[in-house]
Amino acid sequence: MSVTAPQGFRAAGVACGIKADGALDLALVASTHPCTAAAVFTTNQIKAAPVRYDQVLLARRRTGFRAVIINSGNANACTGPRGLSDIYAIVDLAGFLLGFPPDTILVMSTGVIGVPLPVDAIRAGLFQAIPALSAEGGEAAARAIMTTDTRPKMAVRRLTLNGTPVTIGGMAKGAGMIHPHMATMLALITTDVAVEPELLDDLLRAAVDASFHRISVDGDQSTNDTAMILANGSSGVALDAHTAPLFREALTDLCVELAQAIVRDGEGATKFVEIRVRGARTPQEARHIARHIARSPLVKTAFYGGDPNWGRILAAAGSAGVSLDTEAISLWIQRGEEPPLLLFDRGSPALYFEDVAREIFAAPSFRVILELGLGDGEDWVWTCDLSHEYVTINGRYRT
Amino acid sequence: MSVTAPQGFRAAGVACGIKADGALDLALVASTHPCTAAAVFTTNQIKAAPVRYDQVLLARRRTGFRAVIINSGNANACTGPRGLSDIYAIVDLAGFLLGFPPDTILVMSTGVIGVPLPVDAIRAGLFQAIPALSAEGGEAAARAIMTTDTRPKMAVRRLTLNGTPVTIGGMAKGAGMIHPHMATMLALITTDVAVEPELLDDLLRAAVDASFHRISVDGDQSTNDTAMILANGSSGVALDAHTAPLFREALTDLCVELAQAIVRDGEGATKFVEIRVRGARTPQEARHIARHIARSPLVKTAFYGGDPNWGRILAAAGSAGVSLDTEAISLWIQRGEEPPLLLFDRGSPALYFEDVAREIFAAPSFRVILELGLGDGEDWVWTCDLSHEYVTINGRYRT
Repeated sequence: MSVTAPQGFRAAGVACGIKADGALDLALVASTHPCTAAAVFTTNQIKAAPVRYDQVLLARRRTGFRAVIINSGNANACTGPRGLSDIYAIVDLAGFLLGFPPDTILVMSTGVIGVPLPVDAIRAGLFQAIPALSAEGGEAAARAIMTTDTRPKMAVRRLTLNGTPVTIGGMAKGAGMIHPHMATMLALITTDVAVEPELLDDLLRAAVDASFHRISVDGDQSTNDTAMILANGSSGVALDAHTAPLFREALTDLCVELAQAIVRDGEGATKFVEIRVRGARTPQEARHIARHIARSPLVKTAFYGGDPNWGRILAAAGSAGVSLDTEAISLWIQRGEEPPLLLFDRGSPALYFEDVAREIFAAPSFRVILELGLGDGEDWVWTCDLSHEYVTINGRYRT
Repeated sequence: MSVTAPQGFRAAGVACGIKADGALDLALVASTHPCTAAAVFTTNQIKAAPVRYDQVLLARRRTGFRAVIINSGNANACTGPRGLSDIYAIVDLAGFLLGFPPDTILVMSTGVIGVPLPVDAIRAGLFQAIPALSAEGGEAAARAIMTTDTRPKMAVRRLTLNGTPVTIGGMAKGAGMIHPHMATMLALITTDVAVEPELLDDLLRAAVDASFHRISVDGDQSTNDTAMILANGSSGVALDAHTAPLFREALTDLCVELAQAIVRDGEGATKFVEIRVRGARTPQEARHIARHIARSPLVKTAFYGGDPNWGRILAAAGSAGVSLDTEAISLWIQRGEEPPLLLFDRGSPALYFEDVAREIFAAPSFRVILELGLGDGEDWVWTCDLSHEYVTINGRYRT
């Protein structure tokens, strides 16, 4: 169901010919009612045309949006002035066909950088997509935004606010260029509550901070990342001070599900690892170190090999640019809710059975716990391993 | 010849059993005359015991050093208080056998982190190494410090100062965990000039800044990196204000040769790439961006695949945390001294033939030139690609 689970949203996914293999590559999501919108974008200095376009639109107003067009296979990034004029050509036609003003339509793109958008193909695709719009189109849309993803990522949360059922639906794509602060990752979330723009923005930022900003696949950060939410009010429920915390919790939970799905389906990923750093001076330092560990190729290849080479984790922590005291550091690994296995005990190797450590590292999912012994700061990120398949995928991405 | 090229240095490389395969793993370099010493160490917060040991010794005095013991196969890092006491046990015996005070002996280690040093094996190895010391032992020593290196790295420079020939010799090891600011990289340089400690320190720092600090294999930074120089004065030439610049040039040149050799022999490396950033606000910003590009897995896998996917280079530059103006950016690639090929021209894709770009990217060595259009700052780094072999090597390093 994904984005079509909430009332009043319809979606479609079609193949318009951007991808050479004929796979779905154009998603359209439309709302029967005008939507309040909020979005978080990449912090990359080099922003793709669709990011710049949406930023301009959302800076002007946060209400009245009717549709989102998302294409995969081409990022429309580093395409010069043509990148923006291509977007105008697409939303003009979409607006005409849908009967909405063009400036009520938002856009996202993902794929190869530096190649002009195939505008004619996308315009032709709109003639397929618009008649295909339906309340069952959520999965096709989720498939149409995939690049190197191996499966669509969809999530739904239903809750009751003031006695009335409301729904949040979402789809996301990830796979490569994933690193905290929005790296090639697109997420579109829909909901049928009514909500003030400022509150919606706060809710989205809090949810993104607890989810998409905590994932890292390869440490690369994209030009196109966007997490967007549209709220159309179709349920008749308006968020207020009483209901907002419940909604926030459900929204965050949905974003965590999508974010974890992105990591689990990271390019070539065979492992899901939580890197948890405790005892830092501040939570910010804890997260900085966790991210630094999560982007170390040596750590990630050790995860891949199932080799409990924990020295690499400490070496990565030590090079994060944060002052540390080796004698205060301890390190554990943990599978599920089993008792954690101590590997490094306040500056010295711990006594442990190598085969037990190896068994945990061989699990498809485990946790690394690094205690710094400096304060109360704690935070974590979710990451995956670095495999042969990652190199294969990215050595030949365009061909 | 490497470190035994200058007068008065002898070296040996033996197999003492740290490496399971019986390869050389213990190097000893000794000088007939007391040496002035200088060294640059890792900036990793988690420093191996040999780094901490040498730092203490060199903080006390910079002259009178007689030997360096280097083992491979074990980093003696994250080994707790035992790490230092193991070093004392080794230098005590070496000093006794060589007839030097123990505190005239420096140490380096490289290899697995978190495993206690096999002290008995190293002590037994000294009984082999000391009688083997010879002026022809430079290559054996260079082989004994290798880990995943596929070949020894040696360089020699000869020059005439004030009418007298002097020599600089060096050996290095690299392969993995290589990133600017001294990441698992050991270099030992010897020379037969006499030089004041402060001047030697300045000369080494300048040479390291122009060489070892400009290389990146995988962006990981080690606990053990050390670049050290010993000057024993055997040539009878003392450096002065007149000769120091000539010596500096030769020393820098030697370090560049060793640094480039490390990148060319990076773990799994199939390509040597210079990343040159021009038009930054400052040289520091230029180098920061060049390093950021050099550590992007997406850029490095594109190098590996020979895929001129230049959008990844721009995306990496844009996420370096430096403010950029996309419309001012241009990008070229260049093979050898051929005219550079323009790929991205002030914000828009340039017109170029894809097969020409592909041919340059397929070359074993090429240059990427990124013009930011913001100022006069320019700098560069040398890096390699990220291959299947890198993943193979690091997924199973310890086994």
